Order: sequence, then structure tokens, then C-alpha cells
Amino acid sequence: MQPSLFLTPMRQAAPLVHNITNYVAMNVMANVLLAAGASPAMVHAREEASEFAGIASALTINIGTLSPEWVTAMLQAADAARGAGKPWVFDPVAAGATAYRRKESQLLLEKRPAIIRGNASEILVLAGEAGAGKGVDAADSVAAAQDAAQALAQSHGCVVIATGQIDFVTDGARTAAVRNGHEMMPRVTALGCALTGIVGAFAAVAKDPFEASVAALAYYGVAGELAGRSSRGPGSFAVAFLDALMAVDGATLDANAKIDLR
Amino acid sequence: MQPSLFLTPMRQAAPLVHNITNYVAMNVMANVLLAAGASPAMVHAREEASEFAGIASALTINIGTLSPEWVTAMLQAADAARGAGKPWVFDPVAAGATAYRRKESQLLLEKRPAIIRGNASEILVLAGEAGAGKGVDAADSVAAAQDAAQALAQSHGCVVIATGQIDFVTDGARTAAVRNGHEMMPRVTALGCALTGIVGAFAAVAKDPFEASVAALAYYGVAGELAGRSSRGPGSFAVAFLDALMAVDGATLDANAKIDLR
Amino acid sequence: MQPSLFLTPMRQAAPLVHNITNYVAMNVMANVLLAAGASPAMVHAREEASEFAGIASALTINIGTLSPEWVTAMLQAADAARGAGKPWVFDPVAAGATAYRRKESQLLLEKRPAIIRGNASEILVLAGEAGAGKGVDAADSVAAAQDAAQALAQSHGCVVIATGQIDFVTDGARTAAVRNGHEMMPRVTALGCALTGIVGAFAAVAKDPFEASVAALAYYGVAGELAGRSSRGPGSFAVAFLDALMAVDGATLDANAKIDLR
Repeated sequence: MQPSLFLTPMRQAAPLVHNITNYVAMNVMANVLLAAGASPAMVHAREEASEFAGIASALTINIGTLSPEWVTAMLQAADAARGAGKPWVFDPVAAGATAYRRKESQLLLEKRPAIIRGNASEILVLAGEAGAGKGVDAADSVAAAQDAAQALAQSHGCVVIATGQIDFVTDGARTAAVRNGHEMMPRVTALGCALTGIVGAFAAVAKDPFEASVAALAYYGVAGELAGRSSRGPGSFAVAFLDALMAVDGATLDANAKIDLR
Repeated sequence: MQPSLFLTPMRQAAPLVHNITNYVAMNVMANVLLAAGASPAMVHAREEASEFAGIASALTINIGTLSPEWVTAMLQAADAARGAGKPWVFDPVAAGATAYRRKESQLLLEKRPAIIRGNASEILVLAGEAGAGKGVDAADSVAAAQDAAQALAQSHGCVVIATGQIDFVTDGARTAAVRNGHEMMPRVTALGCALTGIVGAFAAVAKDPFEASVAALAYYGVAGELAGRSSRGPGSFAVAFLDALMAVDGATLDANAKIDLR
Repeated sequence: MQPSLFLTPMRQAAPLVHNITNYVAMNVMANVLLAAGASPAMVHAREEASEFAGIASALTINIGTLSPEWVTAMLQAADAARGAGKPWVFDPVAAGATAYRRKESQLLLEKRPAIIRGNASEILVLAGEAGAGKGVDAADSVAAAQDAAQALAQSHGCVVIATGQIDFVTDGARTAAVRNGHEMMPRVTALGCALTGIVGAFAAVAKDPFEASVAALAYYGVAGELAGRSSRGPGSFAVAFLDALMAVDGATLDANAKIDLR
């Protein structure tokens, strides 16, 4: 597949992506979406979140710094997005860390996301298996989470993305591995959270959320590889990564994407 | 006019600027104010916002990620600033996007800001006209918002700034166009929000909020132009912009400012 | 003393540091901790903060943008950390600015932090003396706060750190001055807040919180000096600082640390 066939229409449409995300990620996510060519908005109040979800082209929900009032807005916004036929993407940050997260994650899962993106530990928890993660970092390998991802995709009728050194994507039937990326990416906070926004932007303008997800992962990873060439640490990597998200064009993306469809 | 006559006293005074702003902008705004030479503080709790507004030299209020408790604090802080004779600057982010924003924007407008700074779509909405903006980005041109800005300035006795490729400023009687800036500025999130802080800092130490606003816009735009020379994308632009805000001195500002007073 | 004897085990353990901090600092603090080699997590909801404090290896609490619900979670998390024998570090941002801050700071102080880190004005306020600080910046010199720091350390059985051009550390009996750092550090927002996270990471893996604090300060200051060599302003300094936090190794740290133990 040619990921540029998803990047180019995304940039042409510049979709409005509504994000209810954590405090750590908000700024990074907005900058990542702007650099990629989308239009981000962060709206979380119960008084307007569902109305705004109807206006936007996609919704992403991230529980990194959740609290009861925000969860209420998340649930309402997810309903509104689904009701309006807009894809919503679920990012279950540290879903297994506390009883509260385990409970609220399940409530959000019931709202039928189009796509779930997490690290291996988070996907294992969502699928009902005991992961090893204690904090926000993955303690399990993506390979260990593949069966859980597939089961989760089948039981909930959604695409599941488990990101790590090699990213894994499945819609229950099809699977893909994406081998792009750079070792510095986990050393910059919220780049995983921001990826969820990019997945939302790609899904906003594509018919097939599985292919949109694969293309988004390849694009993000190729930008990471480009950034890695000119950086000396996590600070300069983060800067070069935003530059690269804007600089990567369709031809560069297709030439460097490492996608194994199965 | 010489904008350095406003930049130099601002740096000498290093005014404490109290900001109740959105989660996306907080860090950027603080860094922008520090780089410019002001002293930022973010204080939003109802238990202290109005007390703090009395201590600070200026207040800015931004509804980017509003919620009921924050709006209560915003209204109280605006009252306190006004009562203490300190200028407060209103940034009506995405004022027209939802019913909730339209309503709360009007409540804040009634608190008589000294200055309003928004993009064209936001100014149109505040003035009671139907803008085309759906998200946080302007869908209307500044030219289309000039009459609305002037009407708003006259009806509310304040300065109105509509920013875009060319910035427009009016106090109802006088008008100015500021033609500084760089095309990368809208590609970095919250630079508009952070500009509101700079306007607050300039207004804190000036007698005339109209002239202070014009000088602040020129300063911000000249720093953007300087940053644009050494950047390769939105990541490196954001970094160079903070460096430029500190590096721009009075002589550089006056030599590069493009201000049309009418 | 050799600060590398604290840096190396911290990096080997990569301790999970739980931070309840302010909105401005969250992203910076996470990046600073990741660059240094620790594992940060931001968790603030009352529904999970105390459970998470039991899981993490250290807790830091910062009142920069406090509100009643967050303070409840802070108090519960501090109890949980103490109960689990984990060190918690208190960062009393602008403790003297408002009546609300003065009151809540005292409540947190009663929860017996292992370490307190503030600027001189904040330490003076905590110790019950009238500091000159009005906002978040220190208006008092570290020298003026040394007696207050020592009294506070003795009365509360904790380590007290007053940071400034020269950092001062005391556990009531021992004292140390750390003369590392760079003049650009106060021009980047939240670098002081993020330092509190580094102190937590060092304290998580050390037996002696006094020595851990001294080592953390030297490490942070040496990274600042390294960053200062390649930066042109606060934007490029912030980027180079994250790179330097990762690049500084034990030998570099020991060779450049300027520690006076008394």
C-alpha cells in the first residue's frame, strides 16, 4: 500500500480533530497536528464537548490525566461522535495502573471506538489480560500483545494499534506491522499521545480505518527517522520531529515506509 | 510612532502579568512573557484569582479550554482587575464554536476588557455577526472583520485587535494596521494566545492601550520575522522565536516595524 | 562527595516518579525526567492519586496552579507516600502570594515532606517569615533565606533546598552550597518545577535525602552549564538543556560539580 494516498488527502482536507487529552500532551499534540497539516482543537467541558464532537471530523480521547468530570465529557463526546458518524480514537494511557483507570477504560471501551491506540501493556489490559506495566511506559513487548490486540479488535469491531519498536495494527481480520520510527521517540513525552491525534486526522478523511492507521504510523515513523538524523538528544529531536512532520511529502513517505501487510 | 518607547519601559518594569488561559497555551505563554522580559503567573482558582488580579499589573483571560469553575474565576478576576485599575485583555478563542462559548464570551464582554484580541472570526462573533469559523482557526479575513472590530470598540469602550496576515487595531476612533509577522506563526500552537500576554505586558506599563497594542503587535511580528530567517519548520521556528523575543532590541524594533496609523 | 554515585543508580533504576504539579510545568517536567533517565507520571484525581503514590518510587507535589480538588488529592497522596515509606518532595510555588496559598502550603507542610524545594521567597514564607515575593519569581536572595531554611529543616525533620544563583541545602545539621547553573535557567518557565522532579528521582534511589538533593542540584546545574554553551536565547537553551540532561555522564558530572559541604 502507498501511505501517501492517505497523507495527501488529509493535508488537502485539513480536518478539524477534536481532542480530549491529558495536560502533558495537549501542547505537543496540537503542534504535531498543525505540523502535519490538520487543525487541532482541545475541548473538554461537559457543556460543549458533545456539541463540538459533532462539528469536528474526528475525536480522540486520552485518559492520561483523567478525572470524573472529564470522563463524563469523554463519554458524551464519544456518543456524539459515533452518532454523527465520525471516527473516534481511544488512547488508554496507563489503563492498568489503578482500579480507577481500569474501570473508566472499560466504560470508554463500551462506547465503541473506531480505533484504539496504546502500548503493549495497555492493549493487554484492555483485552482483559494482566500486563506488566506499572506506570505509563510499556513493560510488555508488542509481540506479546498481538493476540490480545486481535481478540480486542474482533470483540469490539474496531482497529487496534499496539505501538512499540515495531508497531502492530489489526482489525481482527487483517494485520500489519510497521517498522518505522526512531529510538529517541519514547524519550520525548507525549509523542505516543500525539500519534493518536495523527491517527484521528488520517481516519477523518479515509474510508478504511485499518489502512488509515497503517498509513498514519508509517508517516509518523518516517518523520521520526528524518528527525533522528539531525538531533543530539531528546530536546533537539522533538524540535526536528515537528519540522519533519511538515517536511515529509508523499514521495518521501512512500519511499521510506516499511509496512508488512498480512 | 516608535514601538521601542513601549518595549523599553516594559522590560524595565518587568510587569507581573496574571493569565487565566487555556491548557495548551500556558507553557508557551509563560515562556513568551519571560523571553520578552515580563513576569508571568498562571492563577485560576476561585479561592485566589481575584486576590491575585489585584496584585498583578495586568490580567489576561483566554477561553480556549473553558469550564464552569474557571469561568467563575475569570469573571471575578476581571472585576478585581477593573476595580484595581489594571488593564485586562480578553482572548475569545473559538468564541463562535459552541453555544456555551457564545454565552460565556458575552458574560466576559460585559466585564469591560480594556483590550480584546482575537482572530477575524472571533471578533465577528463577539460583535454579533456570523463568522465562518468552526474551530480555533480563523475562517474569515481580517479585512472582513474591520467594521465589526470598530463597532465592538465603540460599543464597549475598548481597544479591539484582529490578528491575521495583517493585524488590525482600533479603539473606535483611531485605527492601525501592523504588517509584521511570519507565515510560520499560525503553524505553531498558541502563539496567538501568547501574544495576548504580550499585549497585557505592554498595556501594564503604558497609558494608552491603543498605542500599547500597536507596539506589542509590531514587536511580536518583528521577532517572528527574525525567527523565520533561521528556521526550517514549525519546531525550529518556535525555538528561534523565543530567542528572538529576547534578542529584539528597541533599535531593531523601530527599524523593522511596519505600522500604518490612520 | 561524588554526585555520580547518585546519578548512576538513578539511571539504572529508572524510578517511577509520581508528580502532582502545575499545568505550566507538566510537559517540561516529564521531558526533564525522561531525559535524565527516570520514568515520570502525572496523576492527580482523588480517585487514584493515593493508590498511585503507593506504586511509584517517589512523589512530588507542586502548588503552582492549585485548586481545592487537587489539594485534596495532594494531601491524600502525601499520606500514601509517607505510609509506603516513599519520599515526597514539596514545591511551594508562590506560597506567599495569596491567603489561599499560605493556608494550603501549611496543610501540605504538616504532611511531612522528605524534602522541600523552593526559591528563597517561598522558603521564607514556609518558615513563617515575611518574604518579598509577590509572584512566582524570587524577590529575596538565597543568602537571606539560609537561616529560615535551617529552622524549617529542624522543625519539620526534612531537607530544605533554596535554589537561586547559588543553591543552598540543609537537613538542619549539615549544609551545602551548590554553585552550578546558568543565567538562562530562570528565563525558561518551569525549570525550577522540573528540578523538583529530578530531586524526587534521586531521592527515590538514595538512602540519604540530603546527599541525594545535593547530587541532584549539581547534576541539574552542570547540564545547564553545558546547555549554555550552545544556546542563543531561552528557546535554544531549553532544547539544549534536555539534550544535556541525557548527555551528562558520571565523569562529566563529578568533574564539573561545585559543591561546598559544611
